[in-house]
Amino acid sequence: MDVKNIAKIISLIENNSNQKKAILSKLYSKTGRAHRIGVTGPPGAGKSTLINNLILNLRAKEKSVAIICIDPTSPFSGGAILGDRIRMLEHYNDKGVFIRSMASRNASGGLSLASSETSDVLDSYGFDFIIFETLGVGQVEVDVMNEADTVAVVLVPESGDDIQMMKSGLIEIADIYVVNKSDRSGADRLSTTLNNMLDTNPSLTSNWQIPVLKTNALSNKGTDELVTGIQDHFTFMKKEGIIKEKINDRYQRQIKSIIQYRYDNHFWSDKSRNSLLSGELSKDIKERLSPIDLVEKILKNEEY
Amino acid sequence: MDVKNIAKIISLIENNSNQKKAILSKLYSKTGRAHRIGVTGPPGAGKSTLINNLILNLRAKEKSVAIICIDPTSPFSGGAILGDRIRMLEHYNDKGVFIRSMASRNASGGLSLASSETSDVLDSYGFDFIIFETLGVGQVEVDVMNEADTVAVVLVPESGDDIQMMKSGLIEIADIYVVNKSDRSGADRLSTTLNNMLDTNPSLTSNWQIPVLKTNALSNKGTDELVTGIQDHFTFMKKEGIIKEKINDRYQRQIKSIIQYRYDNHFWSDKSRNSLLSGELSKDIKERLSPIDLVEKILKNEEY
Repeated sequence: MDVKNIAKIISLIENNSNQKKAILSKLYSKTGRAHRIGVTGPPGAGKSTLINNLILNLRAKEKSVAIICIDPTSPFSGGAILGDRIRMLEHYNDKGVFIRSMASRNASGGLSLASSETSDVLDSYGFDFIIFETLGVGQVEVDVMNEADTVAVVLVPESGDDIQMMKSGLIEIADIYVVNKSDRSGADRLSTTLNNMLDTNPSLTSNWQIPVLKTNALSNKGTDELVTGIQDHFTFMKKEGIIKEKINDRYQRQIKSIIQYRYDNHFWSDKSRNSLLSGELSKDIKERLSPIDLVEKILKNEEY
Repeated sequence: MDVKNIAKIISLIENNSNQKKAILSKLYSKTGRAHRIGVTGPPGAGKSTLINNLILNLRAKEKSVAIICIDPTSPFSGGAILGDRIRMLEHYNDKGVFIRSMASRNASGGLSLASSETSDVLDSYGFDFIIFETLGVGQVEVDVMNEADTVAVVLVPESGDDIQMMKSGLIEIADIYVVNKSDRSGADRLSTTLNNMLDTNPSLTSNWQIPVLKTNALSNKGTDELVTGIQDHFTFMKKEGIIKEKINDRYQRQIKSIIQYRYDNHFWSDKSRNSLLSGELSKDIKERLSPIDLVEKILKNEEY
């Protein structure tokens, strides 16, 4: 695979180049083949090491793998951070591996749109596996995970007590649980908790039995089982026709995000709307229209 | 304060009742007095206990305190979770404390709009302090923190290594760092790391010297210093005129979110737009217009 060319195309898309439309418009019909995998979990769960094991395992099976690291932009790190750079160097000479960091800073229309469009590029270029890696447990991370076919949630015994886990928002998006650092005390207890939770709250949307798999990323234990679990889920989804729904949902979300983004740019490029807003801003709070009343005023002559 | 009445008003707003507009429109001019504080940090950092200490400390000073817990909705927990309920019971008879969980499920226009509107209610009812508590490190959490005047980022020695911290997106939003669980080994090292980081990367936007404060929430150590730090930041912002900018930014974001939400609802209520979309969805990927081409087709007769 021509990694340099792919990197250039993704940059053109990220930077909203004039060629973006032509590129995306040409490649969509070639998508729909890759298995898109989301790997998420709290900071320190060992996701990067685990993904490195996945890369090596899939490469040994002669599968090509692309990684998209979703990285909340930090002004101190400037997007791509040290850890990713080290990792990229490790696979530098392997044409079957592509690693890319994606920061919220440049994402017009949001990170989930950007990751979906980037996956379309990678998919059309023939990558067998596309892995999204997100850090954290927020809504944007959940949104990005929604773009994946299979979501692996990585937890460690230290992930916190049951309430913290329930609170984390990761619970309901998992297709596979990974209990990493399985040599640590508490790993068995965490597996039992997860299995009990799954017994009392089985998936409401499909017949997929969510597995709880133990790994130890540092010593590369459990990677085979994880790869098998991931592939089983893909087979299941194809058999049940779920993969088609996933593709259609992605299509629909892309359309809606692009339109919303365009609209937003368009709406506030209007001078009279802007001057209504800046007029209120120049007043003291006590004299100002409430936000909802100003909205009514701005939209007075619009149809909504 | 009439806590029951406030709770009812917030519910009316959350549920998009017909009275929402009238309520918000009346109270905006009475806002602008409360100090809005964001408390965030990774799961397990001890935020809930720390906030409980803040409540008790501020109540002893006869200040009223409202807490908004931002809670990524889980279908298993149904929004308000056990921990919060226990906490609410603790302050049940205190009219100067108001605690409310807020879940993304009901938030039309996003959680940051909902938390901003709820704060306006609490502010207009005279609460001295409004504390937003968020779990996690995602973009939505950062957005909610943007609604606060003062952001305290709570970390613990186990928060992870430097790279994880830089990656977490919390670093650039802090006005105050709190190193909690200060009795644990590693607390001093974390404080030193943070102080070094602040020395080499001072704030670019103001002259505020971000303090690194040590607390031990479980034994209520360091709470006084934290309250002082929070109040110093408020005084600083008022002196420098930053608080006015914060209020104007909030106003502007509310306007833009409401309009975006309305537009979104309006746009897809149109039948012909919807049928263009469902027409493509019924085709195979290979025959389908790319998302960007379908957008062009849908927007052909629109002005943007």
